[in-house]
Amino acid sequence: MARVSNFNAGPSALPLAALERAQSELLDLNGSGMSVLEHSHRGKVYEAVHNEAVSLVRELLAVPENYDVLFLQGGASQQFAVVPMNLLHSGKSADYIITGAWAKKAQGEAKNVGTIRVAATTEQDGKFPRMPRQEELQLDANAAYVHITSNETIGGTQWHTFPNVGNVPLIADMSSDIMWRPTDVSKFGLIYAGAQKNLGPSGVTLVVIRKDLVESARKDIPKIFQYRTQAAENSLYNTPSTFGIYLLRNVLAVMKGKGGLAAMEAQNRKKAGLIYNAIDSRPDLYRCPVEKDSRSTMNVVFNLTTPELEAEFVTGAQKAGMVGLKGHRSVGGIRASIYNACEMKWVENLIEFMAQFKK
Amino acid sequence: MARVSNFNAGPSALPLAALERAQSELLDLNGSGMSVLEHSHRGKVYEAVHNEAVSLVRELLAVPENYDVLFLQGGASQQFAVVPMNLLHSGKSADYIITGAWAKKAQGEAKNVGTIRVAATTEQDGKFPRMPRQEELQLDANAAYVHITSNETIGGTQWHTFPNVGNVPLIADMSSDIMWRPTDVSKFGLIYAGAQKNLGPSGVTLVVIRKDLVESARKDIPKIFQYRTQAAENSLYNTPSTFGIYLLRNVLAVMKGKGGLAAMEAQNRKKAGLIYNAIDSRPDLYRCPVEKDSRSTMNVVFNLTTPELEAEFVTGAQKAGMVGLKGHRSVGGIRASIYNACEMKWVENLIEFMAQFKK
Repeated sequence: MARVSNFNAGPSALPLAALERAQSELLDLNGSGMSVLEHSHRGKVYEAVHNEAVSLVRELLAVPENYDVLFLQGGASQQFAVVPMNLLHSGKSADYIITGAWAKKAQGEAKNVGTIRVAATTEQDGKFPRMPRQEELQLDANAAYVHITSNETIGGTQWHTFPNVGNVPLIADMSSDIMWRPTDVSKFGLIYAGAQKNLGPSGVTLVVIRKDLVESARKDIPKIFQYRTQAAENSLYNTPSTFGIYLLRNVLAVMKGKGGLAAMEAQNRKKAGLIYNAIDSRPDLYRCPVEKDSRSTMNVVFNLTTPELEAEFVTGAQKAGMVGLKGHRSVGGIRASIYNACEMKWVENLIEFMAQFKK
Repeated sequence: MARVSNFNAGPSALPLAALERAQSELLDLNGSGMSVLEHSHRGKVYEAVHNEAVSLVRELLAVPENYDVLFLQGGASQQFAVVPMNLLHSGKSADYIITGAWAKKAQGEAKNVGTIRVAATTEQDGKFPRMPRQEELQLDANAAYVHITSNETIGGTQWHTFPNVGNVPLIADMSSDIMWRPTDVSKFGLIYAGAQKNLGPSGVTLVVIRKDLVESARKDIPKIFQYRTQAAENSLYNTPSTFGIYLLRNVLAVMKGKGGLAAMEAQNRKKAGLIYNAIDSRPDLYRCPVEKDSRSTMNVVFNLTTPELEAEFVTGAQKAGMVGLKGHRSVGGIRASIYNACEMKWVENLIEFMAQFKK
């Protein structure tokens, strides 16, 4: 079948070139006589792939020298627990900024580990129509850290200017918008992201962490969950998801070839702008529930006037070769996830469909 | 390059047919217009793959109804912590049987969680030449569980008859020999295994756990680490390693097509028998450090008379198209890992090389 226009929220579209590369060498990596899947994680052939993946993260994201780059397992959901296990020291509390379903999940799990404060919430009648303003934040200057969710995949909101949290380490779950644009890593103590939206396949979790936080982290937790364990071993303390890291390498190599994060940002802003414009130009039919300055460039959510029309929209789009447009089951509506690998022509298909729908 | 004879200890050889299937459908799974890597873990196309993987585990391993089958992340090394976090209840201790490097690692991590007893050890002068006999076990009838390592990948030992531990739940790390033969799952409270030896790629951890242990497990740990969380959601609480589970499905489908675990056992016994015979038939040159009734059918370890000869052996074998034969760095010597997917002709290549070496 022809390649569909893929608006899945994650796992999601990958660059075709990254997949084609994987396909062409799946049975024999670099003339080694075996698949990347069959290589030892301690052998030279895999090691070269692994180190290239680390280097590409460092290069594309301009990661400062005093940060470690780790490839872990378990997804962001595991980091919801592992972050406080490492960084929420006894006698301290951590500040969480609640901006939607994912921030809430992170906070909920952290409460199973230690004492959590809510520094701000933008919840209104069960919805989260925007990110908070700096003056709304009630920060604890003694907090172990401040946690934010840089992009809310379900609510369709995104931090466009990150909060100023003073000297407290800022920690961000960037699962759904990591590397969508150049980011000043030095503003963060720790960034984590499941790979399955902008970086690669599910099963790989990227962690970028300032080395002093690795060093000062708690030692009274199991060794496997201490950041220092994997930091000391270049993420090879135990067997990582070798194929996942290999494919992430392929994806990052494509991103670099396309001009890196500045090029990603230009493309992403253009894609998002086209869809938001298509929404705003037909206010009789479409409505975006997110305030303009909090709108996500990764997950564009909108409603039609009735749930029936929304169902008809999803079905019609599917017939026209577009998948993944149904909003999250918890909020309904329409959601177009347009991560880095979402192609411009798919967005053009969508806005054409939106323009003609019910005309 | 021609396919090599792959004796890697893990990640290791996969059935060629499973890889070819993955290659042929990597860009378009079942006419869906996208790769398995691009499918939502909540969509019907992936769900069918996921459920087939669960069903194949149940069928091949004859898993009783009162057990859950989970696909987790983090490898056996994560289970070293997660098992006691769930099952080592306050006021209890757990018994560990120490049979080599991996049992020691499991015990070492468990000590970071709770109170651990050593019920037996077969360590002699820093080596582990055998598995213990039943009468050597000093079991605590009140233990939360008894932990064993069914096959020691580094030491080359294997439990051929599992210990009788009475009514205490028996927990086995079967990472390196799961499904090497039919196994009576009902003797175990919990079985866990990193997939990257007998089942598929790294990044997927199989857990088979009795439902009453899921239900009675501790609730004072982070939700993501509670077995009940993933058991309630068919391992889809959060995004799993979808490609890893897909490839595991491919591998299990090949195993089923070849006759299931009875066929695996016959083939594995034949392969191991050929190599052990090649060792024993030249006692002037080769020596297996493992006592005969504890010899592993998965990892055949042996020594030559000097480290120099061993290095020459590894180099010569590599020139003849055999990879992965160098023993683990902690013990040296030679190790031939001959998991389910290791082909008979590779073993024939090895024994021919062994027979001619230094003649």
